[in-house]
Amino acid sequence: MFPENVMMQLSEKTPSRICLVVMDGVGGIPVNGKTELEAAKTPNLDKFAEESICGRSVPIALGITPGSGPGHLGLFGYNPITYDIGRGVLEALGIGVKLGEFDLASRANFATMKDGIIVDRRAGRIPTEENRRLVAKLSEAIKEIDDVKVKIYSGKEHRFVVIFTGENLSDGLEDADPQKEGLPPQPCAAAKQSSSRSARIVNAFIEKVNGVLSDESRANTILMRGFACPPDIPKMNQLYKLTCGAFAVYPMYKGLASLVGMETIDCGQTLESEVETFSKKQEKYDFVFFHYKNTDSRGEDRDYDGKVKAIEDFDRVLPEILKANFDVVCITGDHSTPAKMGSHSWHPVPVAIKAKFEITDEVKRFTERDCDKGGLGRVWATDLMPILMANAKKLKKFGA
Amino acid sequence: MFPENVMMQLSEKTPSRICLVVMDGVGGIPVNGKTELEAAKTPNLDKFAEESICGRSVPIALGITPGSGPGHLGLFGYNPITYDIGRGVLEALGIGVKLGEFDLASRANFATMKDGIIVDRRAGRIPTEENRRLVAKLSEAIKEIDDVKVKIYSGKEHRFVVIFTGENLSDGLEDADPQKEGLPPQPCAAAKQSSSRSARIVNAFIEKVNGVLSDESRANTILMRGFACPPDIPKMNQLYKLTCGAFAVYPMYKGLASLVGMETIDCGQTLESEVETFSKKQEKYDFVFFHYKNTDSRGEDRDYDGKVKAIEDFDRVLPEILKANFDVVCITGDHSTPAKMGSHSWHPVPVAIKAKFEITDEVKRFTERDCDKGGLGRVWATDLMPILMANAKKLKKFGA
Repeated sequence: MFPENVMMQLSEKTPSRICLVVMDGVGGIPVNGKTELEAAKTPNLDKFAEESICGRSVPIALGITPGSGPGHLGLFGYNPITYDIGRGVLEALGIGVKLGEFDLASRANFATMKDGIIVDRRAGRIPTEENRRLVAKLSEAIKEIDDVKVKIYSGKEHRFVVIFTGENLSDGLEDADPQKEGLPPQPCAAAKQSSSRSARIVNAFIEKVNGVLSDESRANTILMRGFACPPDIPKMNQLYKLTCGAFAVYPMYKGLASLVGMETIDCGQTLESEVETFSKKQEKYDFVFFHYKNTDSRGEDRDYDGKVKAIEDFDRVLPEILKANFDVVCITGDHSTPAKMGSHSWHPVPVAIKAKFEITDEVKRFTERDCDKGGLGRVWATDLMPILMANAKKLKKFGA
Repeated sequence: MFPENVMMQLSEKTPSRICLVVMDGVGGIPVNGKTELEAAKTPNLDKFAEESICGRSVPIALGITPGSGPGHLGLFGYNPITYDIGRGVLEALGIGVKLGEFDLASRANFATMKDGIIVDRRAGRIPTEENRRLVAKLSEAIKEIDDVKVKIYSGKEHRFVVIFTGENLSDGLEDADPQKEGLPPQPCAAAKQSSSRSARIVNAFIEKVNGVLSDESRANTILMRGFACPPDIPKMNQLYKLTCGAFAVYPMYKGLASLVGMETIDCGQTLESEVETFSKKQEKYDFVFFHYKNTDSRGEDRDYDGKVKAIEDFDRVLPEILKANFDVVCITGDHSTPAKMGSHSWHPVPVAIKAKFEITDEVKRFTERDCDKGGLGRVWATDLMPILMANAKKLKKFGA
């Protein structure tokens, strides 16, 4: 990885513009001899590949399957092993909560306690409706603990998210969750000295919650886990001097983008509305992150044909995206999600970069095995941003 | 390199099984236009390559020629630059001595001293028979120095190995060897503060030895060098949660395997007995290391035709190995040993991985130049274990 402090010295503001298109989980493995990309009819992606330099991007390290957080951090040029995005943070981002540097996020469950023993860790999987009522009740009753603000957000069924906001909060905290039923509740313990105040606040919060919920039959206590502060990460405008806009339909990806300082734009719920919004609003940014979710979703569903179709759907809108006239366009994925596996995987992801000053290769199709023969070769995801920046002539010479 | 502490968190025990076949020194360079692999008739290796993803493995770093120790450590997924296997340890492993964490190993020579001057550093290359008599005599007379146990093992001619066993022994020690004849003996000096006790013990040992050998005409003293403790290395069952079995004919490779916590299985002295033992006993392990030596031996002999034949010999038994039905099989080497050079070399080594979830490529022969065109591309040896683990679905997702 190229060091961040040097990148900050080399990067400079210019009028040129970069577009990073992430087809989530786009990479695959063969079913009946063909990967999803190999089976799909993709005239526009193929034309793009032909005019590009191509390769295979390794998201984290060879053999390592990335979660969505590390997968995107790598693409944005951050070391995904150094910058840890904890569970609580990801859960908060996933339900659309934006996080700042003074936030401590936690996942939580409503649970049932009887005679001092946790008898149901999910409070009978209460309906989401009831969850909303309980969260409103808690939010009304508990707004602050010791100068630390508390906000509570409903999730689905028994799940919710708690955000503590205050100075010097720390996420070195053990789960306040016995993990198994039939045990007494487990208070939150500090895993390191500097977290002892945060642990006290969490435990004071749980005590207050227990009071507020004491008249409930099922959801009469809570379990909390995955305590996490957002990573202390330089923003993209500091690192690259870029004004960044993120176009995404799902909250999680907007959240990840906002963690690195991108502005997030409401894009509606479909690829069509996303592209339309992009066309209208992309002009004001010199870096655009365009996220397409369906390739991952169909892969996760083990729906090979559906993933092929999701690729073809994207292929149809690609000309509209390319019309926006960016100086540098990169199309890739944050990881592979082979329909054959129904999950994220470690397989490197096709990548194609089109730019005026880049050398092209002989690759004529945007597929795994075609891109293997490309001029980029095997490239680490974290190296893509420097390559895009260079092609946009936004990086000064290193040394004299 | 992917960090060990994160690997420990991601790895999990599953019923799937991995086989790593190491054809020692298999890589070569052309003689009359063909490498040994290119000249050999290898229908089974080629079929395997066709069903695999192929590439070239870099054992340590580009341009670096590995010794057997680092070559194997890399293949097992350990950083071969961080983990130093000292000479004494390697020598001990080579004669079949197993080492534990409280051991300090040293190579030693019988030597001739006259009037306080070393006049022959090899005691006239005494016959191995005489070496055995002397080692028996020393072993009888010296069993302990200051609570530190001493064991002495015969090697060939004038060479032997000494193992000191006790708490807090350290290998920061200079050689007790003047390196040249015509000089007085050189006592062992501590190269760092924490080694001063170990140095005192070594010197006390040498003094006792001189007493016991005082009536010998030729071998009346000893020289000691290459003091080394086994590296403090996490075992494969900690790092990968694997139950490992090592099938090898030569003691050195059994020793290297046992350093990382593999069980070593006695395989007789031939490839045939090794394969037979493998077929009978492989089932109880979820990771098997199969070591084949002859490719390296013939390379070291500068015997091009012999190495071609050694490759063909292995090719004939390969179907028997593949019958064992591992989920993931990897065939590669620990380094190249081109017959043209008669020594280990830095050239990357062909590698092929066959697994259900891996994407295949167009490579149809297991040779250096065919594998260069494979889907794995150029891969660091240390990245192979994560890829094998991933393919065996033994690695959890990194981050959420």
